[in-house]
Formats: sequence, C-alpha cells, structure tokens
Amino acid sequence: MRCYNFNGGPGALPQSVLERVAEEILDWRGTGMSVMEASHRSKEVGAMCEETQGQVKSLLGLGPEWAVVFCQGGASLQFAMLPLNFAGPGGVCDYVNTGLWATKAYDEAKVCGAAAHLAATSEAEAFTYIPSSFDFSERPAYVYLCANNTVRGTRWPSFPKNAPGPLVGDFSSEFMARRHDLTDFGLAFAGAQKNVGPAGLTVVMVRKDFAESGKKGLPHMLDYRTYVKNDSMYNTPPVFSIYVANLIFKWIEDAGGLSEIEARNEAKAKKLYGFIDQSGGFYRGTARVDSRSPMNVTFRLADENLEKPFLEGAKKEGMVGLGGHRSVGGVRASLYNAVGLDAVDCLTSYMKAFMDKNG
Amino acid sequence: MRCYNFNGGPGALPQSVLERVAEEILDWRGTGMSVMEASHRSKEVGAMCEETQGQVKSLLGLGPEWAVVFCQGGASLQFAMLPLNFAGPGGVCDYVNTGLWATKAYDEAKVCGAAAHLAATSEAEAFTYIPSSFDFSERPAYVYLCANNTVRGTRWPSFPKNAPGPLVGDFSSEFMARRHDLTDFGLAFAGAQKNVGPAGLTVVMVRKDFAESGKKGLPHMLDYRTYVKNDSMYNTPPVFSIYVANLIFKWIEDAGGLSEIEARNEAKAKKLYGFIDQSGGFYRGTARVDSRSPMNVTFRLADENLEKPFLEGAKKEGMVGLGGHRSVGGVRASLYNAVGLDAVDCLTSYMKAFMDKNG
Repeated sequence: MRCYNFNGGPGALPQSVLERVAEEILDWRGTGMSVMEASHRSKEVGAMCEETQGQVKSLLGLGPEWAVVFCQGGASLQFAMLPLNFAGPGGVCDYVNTGLWATKAYDEAKVCGAAAHLAATSEAEAFTYIPSSFDFSERPAYVYLCANNTVRGTRWPSFPKNAPGPLVGDFSSEFMARRHDLTDFGLAFAGAQKNVGPAGLTVVMVRKDFAESGKKGLPHMLDYRTYVKNDSMYNTPPVFSIYVANLIFKWIEDAGGLSEIEARNEAKAKKLYGFIDQSGGFYRGTARVDSRSPMNVTFRLADENLEKPFLEGAKKEGMVGLGGHRSVGGVRASLYNAVGLDAVDCLTSYMKAFMDKNG
Repeated sequence: MRCYNFNGGPGALPQSVLERVAEEILDWRGTGMSVMEASHRSKEVGAMCEETQGQVKSLLGLGPEWAVVFCQGGASLQFAMLPLNFAGPGGVCDYVNTGLWATKAYDEAKVCGAAAHLAATSEAEAFTYIPSSFDFSERPAYVYLCANNTVRGTRWPSFPKNAPGPLVGDFSSEFMARRHDLTDFGLAFAGAQKNVGPAGLTVVMVRKDFAESGKKGLPHMLDYRTYVKNDSMYNTPPVFSIYVANLIFKWIEDAGGLSEIEARNEAKAKKLYGFIDQSGGFYRGTARVDSRSPMNVTFRLADENLEKPFLEGAKKEGMVGLGGHRSVGGVRASLYNAVGLDAVDCLTSYMKAFMDKNG
C-alpha cells in the first residue's frame, strides 16, 4: 500500500517510473544486465547520459553555450565548489540569504576564503519573504541565490535583473517543477532528490565560458572544467541516479513538458494555500503571500499544541512527511512533481476534519 | 536473458539482490514508499544506514576505534581529500605507485600542494608487479597504496609492515572480496561499484583518531570529521546505493562471510589462471605470478591480432566486458564476487575452443 508522501526530500517519485525501474532491473535496454552493472564506458550508458543531458537542455530551453554535467556530493559540495572555482581566496562574491540553505552556502564561501558579501537577507523577519532590493558589491564574481527555500516555504517570484555579476543558484527543490529563466545565470545546480531522482546526483547547468573562467589548479573533482571537458566521465558518475532522472525527464516530457508540470503544481498549491487562507486562522501560512513556494507549503496551527496530534493523525491516515523542517517545526507539505492532486485532496479533507473536531 | 558480466566496474551484482530491489521498489520495509523516496532523516533510513555501518565493521572485524562513513565522488575525490586532510600544503606523504589509479592519487596529492614522495614504483616494468622494498620518507603523514590494480591485474599479497606512517589505501576493486588486514591502516576507502553496489557511494573506513588529526578549516564536504561527527548525515547521503550495499553485505553474510567469499574468489581465479598457464603460451598472463589479482585477470593472446575476434566471439556467446582497460588493451576478466564459477567455466570453455580453432 503506497502512502501519500509529503517528504521535503528525498521525496515522492512517479510510481510509473519506479515500476519501470523494477521491470528492467535484470536486463536493461537488452544488455543482459542491470543498469547498475553496466560499465559507464559502455555505449549504452554513454548514450543514456547524453540523452539525459539533452533532456535537461530541451526541457529548460538551454542553448549550446550551456553544459549539463553530473556531479556528486549534493548542494553542500556545490557550496564549496562555487567560491573555489570563481571567487578564490579573497575574491568578492555576493549572497542573498533567504534561509538555512543560503546561509550554509554563504558560510561555506567564507570557509573557502572568499570575501563573501551579503547583498540582502530576510533573516530579521525569519526568512518569511524573498528580498527585492539588494546591496550588491561592485564587481562580484557571482551573485548567489537559493531559488526555493524548502525550510521556510519561500521561492523567488522572479530573479534579480541587472545584477553586477552572473547569477548562480541552488534550484534543488524546484528543479523541473516549473520553467526556469536562466538568462542571467552562469551556473545553476540541483540535487536530484526532490523532483528528479534518488539522492546522490547533482545536476549542474553551467555556461561553458563561465566554467572556463574558473580558477586553475583545483583538485580535479572540484573543478567544473573536469566535468565539462570529460562530459561527466572523468570517473564513474552515479549511473543509476542518472538513469532514474532520465526516466523522470521522460515522464515530464510525456506529461506535456514544464508548462504542464508548472500548471499542475500551481493548481496543487492554490488548493492547499486556498484552504489554509480560508480556515479562519485555524491554519496559518508562514511565508509572506508574495513569496510563497508552490513546492513546500509551510504552515502552523493557531494552537501549536495541536500540531503533534495533527501530524500523528495524518500519519495514521497514510500521509507521511508532513512535519516541518527540524530547525523550525510546524507543518510542511512538500508538493513535488510526483505528488498528485489526490494527495492534496486527501490532505485538505483531513485538515478540514481536524479543524471541525478541534476548532 | 542475463549475460556473463566480466566488467571491470561497474560490474556484476548478485541476481538475488537485484530481484529483492525490484520486489520492494514500491514499498520498502512497510513504509509505503520506495527507499528512494524515504527521507534520510526517517527512522527507517537511519536504522538501515547504521545497520550497514555495522555490517562493514562486523565483516572486516573492525573495532570501536573505527568509523565507517559514506562519501560520494568516488576514489577520485578521496585522492584529493587524503592530502587535504592529512598532509596539507607542503606536507610530506608517501605513495607506492602500482599503476593508473595510484598514479592518479599521487598526482592529485601534488595538485593539492602536498610534498608527495614516491616510496616505490613498478612503472619501469609496466606495473606488472607489486613492489616489496620501499624508500619511505622519515615521517610521512601517511603511506598510500592501491590494494588491487584493476588495470594491470595486480594486488598486494600482503601490506608493508613497519611503515613510518599510517597506511591509507584504495580498496575499491577488492573491497569485500576477501578478508582485509587493516591493522596498520589509518584509512581505507572503496568505491561501491565493483563488489558492493551501484556507483555513487564511497565507503570510507577511518580510524577516529586519524580523522580527528586532520587539518582544520577545510570545506565541510572535504573534511572527514564532517562525516564522522554527523554519522554521514551532514547532508543527504546516497541512500539508494547504501541500501543496495546493505543487501549485498547481507548476501555476503548469508554466504558465510568473507572467508567463504575469499575461498570462492580464489577458486575462480585459480581455474582461470590455471587454464592460461597451461595454454602453451597461446594465452599469457600479464601480471607477475606473485602479484596476480584474483579480481582482475589480465592476459594477452600470443598473437595480439586475434584479440579482437576473441572479444567479439566472446560477446556473441554472452560474455560481456572482457576488453582490457582502454589504457592497455588486451583481455581482462573481472571476477568480482557476483561472478560465479559458471561464468569462469563458460569463459575457459570458450578460450579452449578459440585456441583449438586458432592455435
């Protein structure tokens, strides 16, 4: 019996994709072996990886000036790779702090010796909104932002225009959940484990000239050029995770592409936020309305003592992963691509019943 | 139809494990979700990871002074992490060069600014043997070795005694293929994609005091302490790969543990090397007899022009991955744990028939 999975990530994946993985686990693409057993240098894996890079480019409308590469180590390794590659010791780079993950990226830049500068922060208001005015440095190596904050349930309505350096950013929790405007970006990365696959894969989209401009002399696995030049085959990439991502990108294409996915996600979010807003204060969204994330709907109960029974009751009814991030508590419903409208219906029904009983 | 998979890695995995993965792909351990969809902070994943660490310790007989942690980035990232953590800029560290992967580790140490010193190398004889005399530095931060060379088909018969620093090493291609004597080691790592799972997981065994002795101020994801202190949960670990490794460790336990696995591997290797040695020179092993690897049996045909038809014919009969590493050519049969004696029988039958026809 499958549950309704509202995990913040790793999170829900499309059931049809999981079934496909199971079906071909002993014999993938007629090779007589599992994709896990196939050499990364085989023509089948090579073709699959190339296909996957093409899917990313096609879904996001990226031109030939972009490279799509497969890293490991999650966003946390990107937090170090970015300043190491582009700022270097003493190099100026700007950060917009919208919460936990942006804070970690900013702190890591300092660990790496960069002169990281806070161009804006919403910390004083508990990261409940996305800043819209910025104090940029004069010539930063880049301007860092986190596209969607899973912890506080905020996301950038649109990205800064005319920033004094290329934007770079963490798209982990809304990657492939809507169309992304990467026009002003030099690099965008995403841990796979929210919308596009199992943990262990970081998809990095980087403009080739930006990658090329990086500092020299870095360890190979920390230098973006290594991935671009070797087409992510400098060493063994996380083949299985790429394979699942490939199936999920296909699932997105079959669904009608990112416009359709975005429309579905907006509909799910509208339903849940709408219910919260009409609950007469029994439920209260934590993010400012203009900064609300369609991916991670964070809310509290007016009576916070009711949150524990609320979460326990939800779990009993097959709804898993609704607890807020351990750093903030409360409730969080993550509505990633594979979470259907039926899951949201189930949740709002439960929320209504809970309110009727306790309101 | 499953093939006989002699890939050098990623390579063959036990069929029963793959079947188990397929069986529980929609509902893992009664959670109502795939292991790929489960939060790494859930009690189920936490328990599974802890169990897996326990399996490694138990199979290898490691005491409480050891930590088992889960990294990403493969051996190639370890090549950088070792000098960054333990040598630092200008720090002396010793390397024994037994081939491609040891060379890469040695070169990376220099990239990281360490004063890497070659304590021994078999390069002059095409890496056909494992050195037994060493020119160690006086007080190296560590002595690096590669336990098994997949490219040249050599492996250490026993490790150096009385080295002037802790041994550290790359066990990727014979990890869990025999009992390992880690007495003199400070750290041993292994990419999972040979004997224990899908690519994307690096199992690192590190003595806690050694990890603690590392340089300060490193990026978090490059500091072994981050993994030890957070029990590999600083960020999302590669959960699916850990899960498959867990099932494979169980498969090893059920088979009777590493003594039994080692005996099986020795039997397979003995059969194949025996056949090669009795072929009257038609086939010729490339590694010196005292340094032969039971994992990767490398050989040439006396008439090298016959190698291409040999490999093509083998593939037609369902034997895949027999080409030598792209840097050396020839033939390589990788006999990882999941490659059965039946695969070796099939191969030697084919080799006999090929010799009868072409000899």
